[in-house]
Amino acid sequence: MARRHAPARQGHRRDRRRRHLRHRRPERRLRPLRHRLAHHRQPRAGRQRSAPRTAPQAPRRARGRRPRRQRLAPHHRPPHHPPITNATKETTMSEPTIGILGLGAMGSAIATRLRESGYATTVWNRTAAKTEPHVKAGSTAAATVAEAAAQSDILLVVLLDHASVREHLEPVAADLKGKVVVNLTTTTPNEARSTAAWAAEQGLTYLDGAMMAVPEMIGTPASRLLYSGDRDAYDIALPALETLGAADYEGQDAGLASLKDMALLTSMYQMFDGFMQAVAMMRTVGVSAAETAAEVSGWLGAVLPHTEQFAAVIDSGDYSGGQSVDFTRAAVGSLITAAREQGVGADFLEPLMRHLDELSATGRGGADWISVNEQLAIK
Amino acid sequence: MARRHAPARQGHRRDRRRRHLRHRRPERRLRPLRHRLAHHRQPRAGRQRSAPRTAPQAPRRARGRRPRRQRLAPHHRPPHHPPITNATKETTMSEPTIGILGLGAMGSAIATRLRESGYATTVWNRTAAKTEPHVKAGSTAAATVAEAAAQSDILLVVLLDHASVREHLEPVAADLKGKVVVNLTTTTPNEARSTAAWAAEQGLTYLDGAMMAVPEMIGTPASRLLYSGDRDAYDIALPALETLGAADYEGQDAGLASLKDMALLTSMYQMFDGFMQAVAMMRTVGVSAAETAAEVSGWLGAVLPHTEQFAAVIDSGDYSGGQSVDFTRAAVGSLITAAREQGVGADFLEPLMRHLDELSATGRGGADWISVNEQLAIK
Repeated sequence: MARRHAPARQGHRRDRRRRHLRHRRPERRLRPLRHRLAHHRQPRAGRQRSAPRTAPQAPRRARGRRPRRQRLAPHHRPPHHPPITNATKETTMSEPTIGILGLGAMGSAIATRLRESGYATTVWNRTAAKTEPHVKAGSTAAATVAEAAAQSDILLVVLLDHASVREHLEPVAADLKGKVVVNLTTTTPNEARSTAAWAAEQGLTYLDGAMMAVPEMIGTPASRLLYSGDRDAYDIALPALETLGAADYEGQDAGLASLKDMALLTSMYQMFDGFMQAVAMMRTVGVSAAETAAEVSGWLGAVLPHTEQFAAVIDSGDYSGGQSVDFTRAAVGSLITAAREQGVGADFLEPLMRHLDELSATGRGGADWISVNEQLAIK
Repeated sequence: MARRHAPARQGHRRDRRRRHLRHRRPERRLRPLRHRLAHHRQPRAGRQRSAPRTAPQAPRRARGRRPRRQRLAPHHRPPHHPPITNATKETTMSEPTIGILGLGAMGSAIATRLRESGYATTVWNRTAAKTEPHVKAGSTAAATVAEAAAQSDILLVVLLDHASVREHLEPVAADLKGKVVVNLTTTTPNEARSTAAWAAEQGLTYLDGAMMAVPEMIGTPASRLLYSGDRDAYDIALPALETLGAADYEGQDAGLASLKDMALLTSMYQMFDGFMQAVAMMRTVGVSAAETAAEVSGWLGAVLPHTEQFAAVIDSGDYSGGQSVDFTRAAVGSLITAAREQGVGADFLEPLMRHLDELSATGRGGADWISVNEQLAIK
């Protein structure tokens, strides 16, 4: 299934460098929010400039003259793959054969990318007709999952959901022995863990993956894939996986890749909720969504780096400073009132208000409001 | 009252230019999200580089060597104010006298900034002791609000809340005739409208303001203030107001400045909600908040420009393309499941899920999920 809701992160390698730089700065006890804001502003802006979020590019004017296709992100080719002119048959004996189960938009993009990177590919799809264009382009079609497994060293599973993964893998467990199974199907962390546990019982080598990319991004620098589970499986599959996008190994717990993916998507949807509510409020006075989007985008971009200070407070566990729960409660109360005055529902803000109310009612009104974070764990 | 929760937006003048550029591009029917994502990526990154969100600065290395104080944003001085060496008594006859009602952290910062910009200032505070440092620095203290009004051409009201504004202004309505009253106290849009209506009844000239700044930012390029209400009042007060920060006039409806301020703060709190939930999810597997903040910050920064495409869909009113309600419903359902699997509450996501459920249940499951925006109006 094509992951359509996850625009891939740009310039993540540079972000990683920024994080690294941050970790090297000496830790210090943070002042309350209002002080921190003023003092951290300029240095933070400086870091952004020295490590821009977007990849280096030709100057705008020069790029503007090129035809549209050439302005798209160029395909990413890892250094161990020589430039390929006619990729179809140029595999070498040392490279593994890759099987792809599922030729939806994402599976198809993955099969194409691997083939064009010089890998021998075997494709299987429930509806066999979808294999035809791939066979024409040089892939081998497998009539069954077992046949695809038999012909492959590494099997990439790109199916609809968790249920379809189990439905198709369980009957062929014996055929998967000695293969590396990489499940790129979108599943929850516990579904990934469940499949990993099943694979372990069967003596299989299992890696779970989460794709922070849409099909069109596969093989471009904008594509990022997270992996977790068997480390050996990751190391074996890495050269092939790196042709799809930047690869990050998150750890042995097979649920980690999915968890991180879902944590980031969760933050994204909540940001978009906030955008929608701002738009709804401003539309009541005739301001276009485009105008509000420009305002929201500038504003959120400016306050986003403040999450770094919040994180330091959360990691310290010391919520004695900062903007208080009571101050925030009054402020969020005003925001709810303002929305309703304009005839806009405030239900997106109500969960935060409930957490602030609870903190205040239990004697924690003077604590840093970011302590709401601690309330999210289910008791 | 000091507005502590609103980190000021950086580089808003440049953002305005970006918006302008966007408006000049020809409108075109947008493709569904997955296509838009891939095709808009590079051009958008190019625009960001040509109009960076942060103000131009010296190279990082050079700035890094300077002592800390000098790295703070330099004070902003509009061109009509000559450089001031000993500001206290250098007012000219043509400049108005400014009265400041309320010397909390914000009122105090405003009085200081105006005085240092060469304005004659009269200060009043409920607790008179707070006027002393200002009198020592060259301001005049007023014993009553009426006295402050009598001595001022422009009266800036920086009190605790709406109730205190009305409490202190209503008894002195007669003394405010012929003055420009600028209310910078944080109020809801309807409170601002109510005070404007009262002022109109009294024949007063009233302007409402919303400060997107913390006290430390007053007078720096990072400070931005929004105004709405009487246009003449704005034009008269503008030279003085511009010493406090960039000034934007939003329109005659006195509630507009507060509304925009609150719409932006609403989007900010929801983004921080998303950050907190991502942190809570990742902490369950031992990932620090700092690490998650770096991931969230990079990811949200990358997807934030996508609000521009959402806005185009909302403004067109055509929700027939894009990522569907049903797809999003399944995705958000997975996010809620993933959070709960990890022992983290998903209440921040539930309002979105309820809206998606309602759209799906009323035959709109195939519509663009951003049509949730239309559900926010109270029916």
